[in-house]
Amino acid sequence: MRQKIILDCDPGHDDAIALLLAARHPALELLAVTTVAGNQSVEKTSTNALKVCSLARVLDVPVARGMQRPLLRPARFASDIHGESGLDGPEMPVPAFPLAAQHAVDLLIELLLQSNGDIVLIPTGPLTNIAAAIRREPAIVPKIQAISLMGGAISVGNVTASAEFNIWADPEAAAIVFACGRPITMVPLEVTHQALATEDIMQRLRAMQRPVPTFVADLLHYFADSYRQVFGFSAPPLHDPCAVAAVIEPGIILTREMHVAIETQGEWTVGRTVCDIYGKTGLPANACVGYALQVERFWDLLLDTLQCYA
Amino acid sequence: MRQKIILDCDPGHDDAIALLLAARHPALELLAVTTVAGNQSVEKTSTNALKVCSLARVLDVPVARGMQRPLLRPARFASDIHGESGLDGPEMPVPAFPLAAQHAVDLLIELLLQSNGDIVLIPTGPLTNIAAAIRREPAIVPKIQAISLMGGAISVGNVTASAEFNIWADPEAAAIVFACGRPITMVPLEVTHQALATEDIMQRLRAMQRPVPTFVADLLHYFADSYRQVFGFSAPPLHDPCAVAAVIEPGIILTREMHVAIETQGEWTVGRTVCDIYGKTGLPANACVGYALQVERFWDLLLDTLQCYA
Amino acid sequence: MRQKIILDCDPGHDDAIALLLAARHPALELLAVTTVAGNQSVEKTSTNALKVCSLARVLDVPVARGMQRPLLRPARFASDIHGESGLDGPEMPVPAFPLAAQHAVDLLIELLLQSNGDIVLIPTGPLTNIAAAIRREPAIVPKIQAISLMGGAISVGNVTASAEFNIWADPEAAAIVFACGRPITMVPLEVTHQALATEDIMQRLRAMQRPVPTFVADLLHYFADSYRQVFGFSAPPLHDPCAVAAVIEPGIILTREMHVAIETQGEWTVGRTVCDIYGKTGLPANACVGYALQVERFWDLLLDTLQCYA
Amino acid sequence: MRQKIILDCDPGHDDAIALLLAARHPALELLAVTTVAGNQSVEKTSTNALKVCSLARVLDVPVARGMQRPLLRPARFASDIHGESGLDGPEMPVPAFPLAAQHAVDLLIELLLQSNGDIVLIPTGPLTNIAAAIRREPAIVPKIQAISLMGGAISVGNVTASAEFNIWADPEAAAIVFACGRPITMVPLEVTHQALATEDIMQRLRAMQRPVPTFVADLLHYFADSYRQVFGFSAPPLHDPCAVAAVIEPGIILTREMHVAIETQGEWTVGRTVCDIYGKTGLPANACVGYALQVERFWDLLLDTLQCYA
Ligand SMILES: [Ca+2]
Ligand SMILES: [Ca+2]
Ligand SMILES: [Ca+2]
Ligand SMILES: [Ca+2]
Repeated sequence: MRQKIILDCDPGHDDAIALLLAARHPALELLAVTTVAGNQSVEKTSTNALKVCSLARVLDVPVARGMQRPLLRPARFASDIHGESGLDGPEMPVPAFPLAAQHAVDLLIELLLQSNGDIVLIPTGPLTNIAAAIRREPAIVPKIQAISLMGGAISVGNVTASAEFNIWADPEAAAIVFACGRPITMVPLEVTHQALATEDIMQRLRAMQRPVPTFVADLLHYFADSYRQVFGFSAPPLHDPCAVAAVIEPGIILTREMHVAIETQGEWTVGRTVCDIYGKTGLPANACVGYALQVERFWDLLLDTLQCYA
Repeated sequence: MRQKIILDCDPGHDDAIALLLAARHPALELLAVTTVAGNQSVEKTSTNALKVCSLARVLDVPVARGMQRPLLRPARFASDIHGESGLDGPEMPVPAFPLAAQHAVDLLIELLLQSNGDIVLIPTGPLTNIAAAIRREPAIVPKIQAISLMGGAISVGNVTASAEFNIWADPEAAAIVFACGRPITMVPLEVTHQALATEDIMQRLRAMQRPVPTFVADLLHYFADSYRQVFGFSAPPLHDPCAVAAVIEPGIILTREMHVAIETQGEWTVGRTVCDIYGKTGLPANACVGYALQVERFWDLLLDTLQCYA
Repeated sequence: MRQKIILDCDPGHDDAIALLLAARHPALELLAVTTVAGNQSVEKTSTNALKVCSLARVLDVPVARGMQRPLLRPARFASDIHGESGLDGPEMPVPAFPLAAQHAVDLLIELLLQSNGDIVLIPTGPLTNIAAAIRREPAIVPKIQAISLMGGAISVGNVTASAEFNIWADPEAAAIVFACGRPITMVPLEVTHQALATEDIMQRLRAMQRPVPTFVADLLHYFADSYRQVFGFSAPPLHDPCAVAAVIEPGIILTREMHVAIETQGEWTVGRTVCDIYGKTGLPANACVGYALQVERFWDLLLDTLQCYA
Repeated sequence: MRQKIILDCDPGHDDAIALLLAARHPALELLAVTTVAGNQSVEKTSTNALKVCSLARVLDVPVARGMQRPLLRPARFASDIHGESGLDGPEMPVPAFPLAAQHAVDLLIELLLQSNGDIVLIPTGPLTNIAAAIRREPAIVPKIQAISLMGGAISVGNVTASAEFNIWADPEAAAIVFACGRPITMVPLEVTHQALATEDIMQRLRAMQRPVPTFVADLLHYFADSYRQVFGFSAPPLHDPCAVAAVIEPGIILTREMHVAIETQGEWTVGRTVCDIYGKTGLPANACVGYALQVERFWDLLLDTLQCYA
């Protein structure tokens, strides 16, 4: 039996690769792709999702457009990392199929309510869609099997000194999700910064000499430039696929249970995932926080899946 | 020429050892010890400072009592780490001399105004005294040669998930000090957690078979228990002496210049030292933040100094 | 041509009377009643809306249930004022008709998108439904003709020293609504505390000797007790009908244009409507804030309408 | 026996008149004038205090300069109301005597510690000096007989929509003072806006044909212009003398006991005096808040005193 999942994303270079992993890995059944404003506007992230699916011939999964902006704050995009399109770099096809008629929030509610509680949500963008769905229809909460999300940082953020982009972009949505009471695996920067697409990885992708791996290599080429210029990284981290990998093979990310609070009030720390690693708050754990990645296993899993594409 | 310093502290086990280092290292001239509420009440930390000086026969340095509580917030002590006296563990003598007549804030102002701008302040407790002095007499600011402080954390705190004790205890005072415009070396937990008093260090101290090193070993014995129970550390970190060592031998701590903001508003993050390691704020650097310690060099420097005591 | 309106309410004694005014005044065309958590849970406020409509034979207006709780904060009800049912006091019929199948937020979006921009929203509870609709479908904003809301205070609040209940109950929703850019009439406590249901008003209602006015008198009897006990008022203020009256006959409430900010961050002031009466912020006006009521005119208008009920 | 008082002020037009009332009213014994940054820099407010004393031949009262800026925030002056000098308008003499050698905070501490607990503090500027003294020497708190302060507002502020200038200028200091536990009379804008220096008052002052009343009339002439331009007032309110009058003749201001909190965290409401008039917080009263002024009695008291000047 394959694990049912919904990928809630804002493609985004690493979202695109997460989508490719989610759509073809034999352990997963991708029920829907929902999009959200984040790396770029929801118009752009939605189009990007359609284009990636089209390029990879993933034509049987509904792509539904979601929230245009965070619950409270103005939308702020990551153009410095992902470019104006949200997926700058490789050439992209025109979408081969249209968006779903339903709004992402409605689709999330419908799929969850109809389910047997056997769907894992994999958010790889700001948590606006998930939070809006929870507030709109609280009855979905017990239907969520688990949430495996890319977001947050134990120590230092990337968009500010305190915060990682996905959480910072909609901290109030993150606070709603982290308080929902369902099992959460948080895949933070400490994990994803171990998934560095080194020159060796690039060569393995190029050596496959097939369209999808080549497309991924092209994405990573652009992404590498961004990370070199903005952060001085020698190789780019592949954030979002880690959250998918954590569902496919839980042991691939080492985690510890703890309480995670979302800071929404600070002058300098908005969007921080406050990880209570020493148990100082006395609050019960609400998340399994990743702290290490089985790096080789991760790359094998990802590259094996990419090789499955025609 | 010895470097003039004032040690502003809240003894505290590691403060006591910092005091012993500051008082006898040949490169330093200790002009005064000022005390502040922190690990314990200012009455207790002042008495502790007197007792340490008495035990070590440091009788020529004025010890002045300072602020009884933080600028705004209620005082909160670290009894779980330092015990009810603030210096639990070894037996202590009665003080051999009295406190200075002056209030610590007045003494700080007087010494700085009379100086040629050649005094380095070494705060190893909450920054209440320094901040109160700066607000009371702004003319001292250009007279401060530099500040080498133990406090803060780049990644994870110790008193909360976000904050280190000294900064958290009086975040408003810390904000005043970090904004003062003078050179600041911040010695955070990332550095001090490398100064672990291992069994080997304990043996070197005991092997000296002299009163002061034995007293230090006794302090560390108690401190080791605290850190084992509260944090699960196998050996206790010697925080405060690192800030003194950074003045004696700057290269002993590797630092990077960056902007550090103090969070005073967050729901979960009050007292966090927000270290802008990627330069995301665009704000000018206001501190050299330590990130690594020359561990062997540090212990040699400390133990050599302790051996100088009669 | 009658003015199209949607009443978004949390009945609530004064909401019930606002509903009766909105449903039968000849100048208004009530398109829908939407309900929200506020004075009581949304289950109770929805049932109360149905019961009031049933009692008054208002059977042709859809009643749609809305948001179960505020956008971010936990729901907090006004049981001390409105009792456990939200409408304690008079005996109530069982509902003669069911809730609309649609969620209130969907109904709001549908009615607005289909409209010619000629619908005035009259919120008399927390602004959760309106804010959720705006975020879910930003395209409705230009379709909103205007908003006439009961909420806020220029000087002193009622639920806290700083805040009025409707705004305090969901300040983030209020902040979204006040920032939407459409014409807003804010009817604050300064106005509604002039609409006191005195003994004279009670006698006029009883003298009509008809079911609906008698029901209103019974509601006011309970409401008078609440206001006597909680606030020491000698007669209860009829808050919500004022916001309906402001649509029927704009001159009935004297207003001034100004900027109104919603405080969402304060320690003591969350939910305050910060009315910039001296223009100190320099920000453009976003609301017409009521400050006085034509009291006699208001009562005549309300009582004349109530007399129309069979 | 005259009531011992210390006037802590930031002259300022109304402070100057408060000083004249405090220095010569037969029921008061003015022990000292302490100055603080507020309407202007502490250099200017100190010089203004000296000039007013010199002009009025009040030569036996020490004038001590205090804090240069608020505890935490940057200093912000009220030049729009009081002009560049802080006392624009009338011609002023050069000071006939110098500032006291002591800092205002030291003088406050010394006078209070030496007293029998029979000194009333009358702050008519930001509360920085009083708060700094309380934190520096907590032993003064039980020695404070009472505090009669001009500051705050029950309903609407003057410097922002939420806050009155004195509290807003140093809200953290105000929070310290309001939490000190001693009897506080708060004289808010609701009271002082009743002390309007009308044309009739101006004529009574001019008719005295003596230097000090003429000086006061000149001050009020300038102050009237400020209030006309900034607030549209037809006559200027004489804020600070009300706090002195409340000590001379307590019945002159009607007050009610209640809890007053100082907002220091809000986005829009910093410096608000949150007056819990309905007892919603359940917190014990910490202030008697004025709400009405015996207007005629106030003017008689003030003008009678001014007539005493040579
Ligand atoms: Ca993403
Ligand atoms: Ca210390
Ligand atoms: Ca209502
Ligand atoms: Ca003043």
